[in-house]
Amino acid sequence: MAYTAGIWVFGQILDRYATDGYGPAISTIDAIECAGSTGRLSGVDLNYPWSSPDIGDDDVRAALDKHGLHVRTITPAIYSRRFARGSFTHPDPAVRAAAVELAHESVEVARRLGADYVKFWPGQDGYDYPFQVDYAQLRRWSLEGIGGVAARHPDVRFGIEYKLKEPRTRLFWSTAAASLLAIDDMGVDNVGLVLDFGHSLFAKENPAEALTLAHQRGRLVDVELCDNYREWDDDLTVGALHIVETLEFLHTLDRLGWDAPLKLDLFPYREDPVQAVRDSLDTIDLLRERARRLPLTELAAARADHDALAAQRIVRRALFG
Amino acid sequence: MAYTAGIWVFGQILDRYATDGYGPAISTIDAIECAGSTGRLSGVDLNYPWSSPDIGDDDVRAALDKHGLHVRTITPAIYSRRFARGSFTHPDPAVRAAAVELAHESVEVARRLGADYVKFWPGQDGYDYPFQVDYAQLRRWSLEGIGGVAARHPDVRFGIEYKLKEPRTRLFWSTAAASLLAIDDMGVDNVGLVLDFGHSLFAKENPAEALTLAHQRGRLVDVELCDNYREWDDDLTVGALHIVETLEFLHTLDRLGWDAPLKLDLFPYREDPVQAVRDSLDTIDLLRERARRLPLTELAAARADHDALAAQRIVRRALFG
Amino acid sequence: MAYTAGIWVFGQILDRYATDGYGPAISTIDAIECAGSTGRLSGVDLNYPWSSPDIGDDDVRAALDKHGLHVRTITPAIYSRRFARGSFTHPDPAVRAAAVELAHESVEVARRLGADYVKFWPGQDGYDYPFQVDYAQLRRWSLEGIGGVAARHPDVRFGIEYKLKEPRTRLFWSTAAASLLAIDDMGVDNVGLVLDFGHSLFAKENPAEALTLAHQRGRLVDVELCDNYREWDDDLTVGALHIVETLEFLHTLDRLGWDAPLKLDLFPYREDPVQAVRDSLDTIDLLRERARRLPLTELAAARADHDALAAQRIVRRALFG
Amino acid sequence: MAYTAGIWVFGQILDRYATDGYGPAISTIDAIECAGSTGRLSGVDLNYPWSSPDIGDDDVRAALDKHGLHVRTITPAIYSRRFARGSFTHPDPAVRAAAVELAHESVEVARRLGADYVKFWPGQDGYDYPFQVDYAQLRRWSLEGIGGVAARHPDVRFGIEYKLKEPRTRLFWSTAAASLLAIDDMGVDNVGLVLDFGHSLFAKENPAEALTLAHQRGRLVDVELCDNYREWDDDLTVGALHIVETLEFLHTLDRLGWDAPLKLDLFPYREDPVQAVRDSLDTIDLLRERARRLPLTELAAARADHDALAAQRIVRRALFG
Repeated sequence: MAYTAGIWVFGQILDRYATDGYGPAISTIDAIECAGSTGRLSGVDLNYPWSSPDIGDDDVRAALDKHGLHVRTITPAIYSRRFARGSFTHPDPAVRAAAVELAHESVEVARRLGADYVKFWPGQDGYDYPFQVDYAQLRRWSLEGIGGVAARHPDVRFGIEYKLKEPRTRLFWSTAAASLLAIDDMGVDNVGLVLDFGHSLFAKENPAEALTLAHQRGRLVDVELCDNYREWDDDLTVGALHIVETLEFLHTLDRLGWDAPLKLDLFPYREDPVQAVRDSLDTIDLLRERARRLPLTELAAARADHDALAAQRIVRRALFG
Repeated sequence: MAYTAGIWVFGQILDRYATDGYGPAISTIDAIECAGSTGRLSGVDLNYPWSSPDIGDDDVRAALDKHGLHVRTITPAIYSRRFARGSFTHPDPAVRAAAVELAHESVEVARRLGADYVKFWPGQDGYDYPFQVDYAQLRRWSLEGIGGVAARHPDVRFGIEYKLKEPRTRLFWSTAAASLLAIDDMGVDNVGLVLDFGHSLFAKENPAEALTLAHQRGRLVDVELCDNYREWDDDLTVGALHIVETLEFLHTLDRLGWDAPLKLDLFPYREDPVQAVRDSLDTIDLLRERARRLPLTELAAARADHDALAAQRIVRRALFG
Repeated sequence: MAYTAGIWVFGQILDRYATDGYGPAISTIDAIECAGSTGRLSGVDLNYPWSSPDIGDDDVRAALDKHGLHVRTITPAIYSRRFARGSFTHPDPAVRAAAVELAHESVEVARRLGADYVKFWPGQDGYDYPFQVDYAQLRRWSLEGIGGVAARHPDVRFGIEYKLKEPRTRLFWSTAAASLLAIDDMGVDNVGLVLDFGHSLFAKENPAEALTLAHQRGRLVDVELCDNYREWDDDLTVGALHIVETLEFLHTLDRLGWDAPLKLDLFPYREDPVQAVRDSLDTIDLLRERARRLPLTELAAARADHDALAAQRIVRRALFG
Repeated sequence: MAYTAGIWVFGQILDRYATDGYGPAISTIDAIECAGSTGRLSGVDLNYPWSSPDIGDDDVRAALDKHGLHVRTITPAIYSRRFARGSFTHPDPAVRAAAVELAHESVEVARRLGADYVKFWPGQDGYDYPFQVDYAQLRRWSLEGIGGVAARHPDVRFGIEYKLKEPRTRLFWSTAAASLLAIDDMGVDNVGLVLDFGHSLFAKENPAEALTLAHQRGRLVDVELCDNYREWDDDLTVGALHIVETLEFLHTLDRLGWDAPLKLDLFPYREDPVQAVRDSLDTIDLLRERARRLPLTELAAARADHDALAAQRIVRRALFG
């Protein structure tokens, strides 16, 4: 199975405390170089616009080609300063229009670079305080914004990455079910979910259950892997904490026949990103191999009886032999 | 506005530690007496079967009539020992059939007692461990069970009360959006949501947003009030902790034109239930009065600009004058 | 290494929904029989008083002897109806005195049955609402109650099992550090902590760090194992969710030279308790064996550099070979 | 009562998504100007070093004097890139020495500017993954680092601001009790706690209880106010969500005789900081006035009986008249 990674894994990470960054500034090109140097990735998820206006699409393509990297998706940066108060739901129609414009541009870039889909991560579309927004309006704009872009490009696939919160304390695209319901209401066929294992965990979902639901509705566009403490999007390396749930997630992907590349979404604040990627992929490889050891008939029998203990014994045997 | 309460508020409460109960055993009839003695309720939510086979529907009706209490809803006890491993999703078809049977019986009782709707709280339909169930199967049975009952009684309304967890660590009917999506898939018109403010809080929703969504889809059946620490269904008295969110919830109900009675869902483990009900209703009355002080045009303007600070100032003024 | 279990693992479990119990009523004697039938336990943690006044200490001893079971600890039931509003901190001095009296009785029973220590789990000592108690008073009574009992029996060891909440929404003995600080203030030498892995997890501690701290201060009395989703005391089987943290916990115990038996604290609501115990012990045995594979020098080097990735690789290798 | 604010409230805020900042870059001097322009502050909490090496202490003093601002505390920036892997606990002794050096420098600056105390917020001292650090070593270095600085300046007061997590997933100075225990072990008299209401909330403490504990031990150095959703350090405006707990906190401060200025710790990502400060102070003024309406004898009686309902009624009356 092939793997991809978000280009941000290799970029400079800042937060509100280390405002000088956890490492030096890194250009889009250098980040692609770094992604290539892992020797393990077939593609990347690229934030658009590029890190500097001096960089052209051809420069990006050249860097990708050098390492044989495919563009899995283009992700417009609808969460930077301009969109701090919202992208598709910003109170100012000019900013909403700018978000749509950036989305269209991203579609063009995606076409030029041969990306599989365009990803929206509407991390500023939401609110922070009670009474701050009109919820019906927020929903309407969320659906019209993305729905409108998708309707204009019926040949392109779009994926929405939901998350409960951060940077807003409440995001509109919050959970798998809330997002699937909103996508149903959009009335377009070419929009689905990007299901991030970590987002699912801290949204109090069971990731394998959310995966099953999204796939069943034909709305699964992409899958991202990482780990966290169930309360925040820590973006730790894969398997650092939730080995059983990661195993179940990989097993479920396999049973659903999902054969698209799996993506890594890590924030290695204090770690070497190349090593973080390699270690995460080693863990995924290992757990996928263990998932294949699961005795399907026996597992199905345990599940048919909702037998938690039998299921845990089967898991323990598959993991530890 | 009229108020109702769950009959359990007045019953004996047990938990896994005080297995001898936080007070003495109380019959359905005595609990109705207690509800009536509050002098503040127009109706009750009754668990069925009654506390003892010796009690007949006529006894219940007599007790209700004595206090002028209406039956807001009948709630079948699909969470007791027989259904510990599931009601509509129990692995054993005989138990699933028993759940359906109890649901039909509850419809008959609801008809006889003139209840407004039949409520399902499928608190045992879910799982506790990863790998324990087949998620697609769990969903299928959940929808078929309730959907089948609803299709058989097209003249009756049904409400599903969702909750993230407890007593299972994961419930199928977990959030507002997950439940609305599942109800859409059922293909029946007479099923909707019972939105419990506290369940919404600890499902990491904003209750007023969930309310807006359910109402907009024509799926709001009933509303329950209580409070908690956002992590568990503590069922504290109304307004004990979340005054601003409760205000927003009541304001939203008012704006949506919701004029059905509001229900209390309290577990006064160590408190007098009559006093807990009166105090909660006093707080609701007070906050409804404060909600009516909100200057609608000014609030709409603040919201139109997503102006959190202006909105908080408006709230502070309405609350504190 | 030897293992013990709480006798409640084998008893009838109730909760506020399945008030008729997840299984039939089970006497202290029958629960001991059940514990013995696991074939894997060297001892038990016994709640006192026994399930019925008809049962005498000699009956208990006979049942224990039959299965070669040791009494690891006596745990007075200071959380049942009488103590619903507090045991050592109840507002009524008569109830506080009753808690002390029951504690003294438990010491006598512990002496008679040869228990290693007396355990307090003050699950009703706390509060539920803001403004409900005088915090300084709550602290004073908590310390005086347990401290007074301990001072009266300087030859006996006492362990306090802390927990963040449940059944109160806030417990006084909440975290490892809060409890260690309070024990320091008690001024007695014979009181320490019972560290429950699950309680530590959902108190937002790292269990291995809490263990290190308690041991370093000479205050570690006993250790209990289980698992949960980090938000509530789910008491799932060992290793069901947190394999890495359980491994770290067992490794830390080993490095600290802890050779007392490890105790299981499970609530197998819907599972066979004998099987739940055997499976949990199999997992512990397996993880203890994997912990011994950890290359100590290499791990120390990774830790000396705070090298998270190296540490995770070492863990992965020890777990999966 | 006087009020202060962290200077960061008025600075540029970045996060890992809006890496171009939620507003333009702002110098220390401009931030002081902004603080002064609120017209409501008596002092500030200043991060050191200043925003640029071109700014001298005299420039800072001049800006402060212009607005009559006092320096409440100097907070060394032991959380920027250099200290990303730790300050007092960094694995490299050279970096640990640099943290100590910056602390000493901060003491000198504090002396020159007449600050009341020096604040440590060791947000990088902790870890992110299980097995990453030696917990005993982490504790030793944490205590030696701060304890050593404090011992060198016995005439200066030091305050430690604890927080459960962020930016590390686990911080050493995590809760009030853990920090008080560690301070006890330091063996110095001039170190105490800076208790942030929001940090206390999301550490699952009750802020008023933590306050009582710290004050009782003579370890309360300063108090900061803000609000959040109990899961993360959202730094919302005061009273936005937790009116009752804020009231209890202010009431407790009053009863303890705390007359030092109260500090604001806000991150107004999308709001005007001047307005956010004014609104927060208006809320504090209002709630302090309401706190003074609490009938002390009646409240004491309710508390003496742990009467939650009576206490809530008293609170409702004080708040709403």
